[in-house]
Amino acid sequence: MVKRPMNVTKFAIPEIIFGRGSMVHVGQCARRLGARRVFLVSDEGLEKSGWVERVQTILEAESLEWVYYGDVNSNPRDWQVSHGAKLYLETGADVILAIGGGSPIDAAKGIAILAGNGGSIADYEGANRIERPLPPTIFLPTTAGSGSDISQFCIITDVERQLKMSIISRSLVPNISIIDPLILLTKSQELIIASAIDALAHAVESYVSRIASPFTEIQALRAIELIMRNLRHAVEDRDLDALEQLSIASTAAGMSFSNAGLGAGHALAHSLGGMFDILHGLVHPILLPAVMRFNTPACQEKMGAIGRLVVGRADMPSRLAAEAGIEVLREYFADLGVPVRLRDILPDRSPLAQLAGASAGDACNLTNPRQADVESLLGICEEAW
Amino acid sequence: MVKRPMNVTKFAIPEIIFGRGSMVHVGQCARRLGARRVFLVSDEGLEKSGWVERVQTILEAESLEWVYYGDVNSNPRDWQVSHGAKLYLETGADVILAIGGGSPIDAAKGIAILAGNGGSIADYEGANRIERPLPPTIFLPTTAGSGSDISQFCIITDVERQLKMSIISRSLVPNISIIDPLILLTKSQELIIASAIDALAHAVESYVSRIASPFTEIQALRAIELIMRNLRHAVEDRDLDALEQLSIASTAAGMSFSNAGLGAGHALAHSLGGMFDILHGLVHPILLPAVMRFNTPACQEKMGAIGRLVVGRADMPSRLAAEAGIEVLREYFADLGVPVRLRDILPDRSPLAQLAGASAGDACNLTNPRQADVESLLGICEEAW
Repeated sequence: MVKRPMNVTKFAIPEIIFGRGSMVHVGQCARRLGARRVFLVSDEGLEKSGWVERVQTILEAESLEWVYYGDVNSNPRDWQVSHGAKLYLETGADVILAIGGGSPIDAAKGIAILAGNGGSIADYEGANRIERPLPPTIFLPTTAGSGSDISQFCIITDVERQLKMSIISRSLVPNISIIDPLILLTKSQELIIASAIDALAHAVESYVSRIASPFTEIQALRAIELIMRNLRHAVEDRDLDALEQLSIASTAAGMSFSNAGLGAGHALAHSLGGMFDILHGLVHPILLPAVMRFNTPACQEKMGAIGRLVVGRADMPSRLAAEAGIEVLREYFADLGVPVRLRDILPDRSPLAQLAGASAGDACNLTNPRQADVESLLGICEEAW
Repeated sequence: MVKRPMNVTKFAIPEIIFGRGSMVHVGQCARRLGARRVFLVSDEGLEKSGWVERVQTILEAESLEWVYYGDVNSNPRDWQVSHGAKLYLETGADVILAIGGGSPIDAAKGIAILAGNGGSIADYEGANRIERPLPPTIFLPTTAGSGSDISQFCIITDVERQLKMSIISRSLVPNISIIDPLILLTKSQELIIASAIDALAHAVESYVSRIASPFTEIQALRAIELIMRNLRHAVEDRDLDALEQLSIASTAAGMSFSNAGLGAGHALAHSLGGMFDILHGLVHPILLPAVMRFNTPACQEKMGAIGRLVVGRADMPSRLAAEAGIEVLREYFADLGVPVRLRDILPDRSPLAQLAGASAGDACNLTNPRQADVESLLGICEEAW
């Protein structure tokens, strides 16, 4: 941990209920928040795998009514949020509950914003633009990665502008996050990898963020350590202990990035996701090493701390460890069999300039440890090409 | 970190605002919670040192009215809580704000309980007995130790029964904790030591608690490390960086014990504090080593992890490290010049039986890793004599 004088810092997380089978508490939690009619947000995949019905059954056992909204897909759209908010208000629901990966949870956050504040979701793009309270929220993450169940971030795609809007506000931290690692047993290998790498990127970017604090740094380092130690075992053997450790890692990374912010990697990932409908987690193996290399001159000690964890050698000096960590991560991603170059997912270089331009204005770019202008962001894309 | 199958676990902490000068945000925070007339709880010491007036000035600058209640002393009494609650209701205040060590904060929690639920404070002794919501609360700790600004614990002395009641409830976690390490510069050496050792005891007891979780364990270990590394420098040189690290340690220990509970040491400390009006933190150097020795057979691996941090040797096997850690702590406490034997603070052995009897029923005893009946508790007292 690097010691230095600190500015005033804030740290806010939801109440967390964690453990195998913890989903069963969702009814009591909703009731504790004053629910009579729960607005349940999820998606088609979770309907098919039976988890949506399971939640509905638990709510009914607690004598709670529910209204279901499942019109959400990966990278949720602005219109899906406004349709959801309209339905929430029309049906007189009182608590918003989402079960899903980052997409249904972000959609639920967007719905909560509009339900409590009106207007259109683009009105709230950026940091601290939500002024009125939201309905109470409970989130059940079904992937170990997005951290959206913990965070004050909400990412919604603006269809017309072809970009993902970052909406950041203290009031987006839910009341309760219920994290049940048993759900991970039903997830595909690809989704487990993409989610874990998203969590790893959250941890790395927030650890070196301009506004990291001792409260976030400890969580970031822990997430990196747990992911490096458990991902392979979780994926290859679908080992429940290892999957549970990935859930803990994702939660820790969520505590970190929610309060410390992210960086240029997520700024680029949001723009890329706005232009092309790509699984968010699969963007990071491509971008993260190049972003780390760009950032190292601004935070060599911290990159060294990350490197020592990644390489697994506590005695390595920072300069060497920073270098070695990036290389080991590059190989690690390649071994996982995911795309590791931008050319693997884009048809040609032509979108790169638009990509860099859109990323420069993303709210995540503000906390990047090294100033990243359009030219620097284009350089990162070129390195990742 | 010891890995084992986990039950469902809960983790709840307040929103934290941390940093030098962060006190200045207290007015905005109160306003955010809907305040118009703040009920301010503190004590004579903080009036004299000027901090109460400072808070009043900040509230006034935010155009907030305040009602002051300062009739609180060390180990706050049941009648002080009921008087405070009566005043809160009579004056139509709407947010409860405490500035102080554990005593004013615990008194404020008691006042909040009665303001929201009525009855007498003894009605709420034990775990989860508060059913109705409390007024919003903001706490500003002025010591780095009690953790009461973070925790779901409230300790109030029952004058008639001569014991400290442990009241434990999720609803005692405040809305906001504002932690300003600058305040520590005005504190006595004795208070800094007593507070830091209280935080150390919170960390050690909660780390080995029956209901510790990965979310609490990481905070406990970190608190132990920071206290061992910074206490001497903070006390001898009144170094602000070291004092700030003690604040972080106390906050981390608070996150841990609030969610994992404590053990036999705090059960004994509460009984001792109920029978004799002793500064709470000064009880732990006497009790903690004996409690650790008693508990070791039930949690040798974890005592080993504590020992390795205390001794500062990462390579020591657990059995040796557990032993060595206890001995190093014993010497460390003695070097700090605080009482280290029960005979230093009690006139004779005659209260020991009553002490052990009262402790066995304390709520903290439920989470001790090794069952501690009256006889075992008497044995711990004898070892500490």
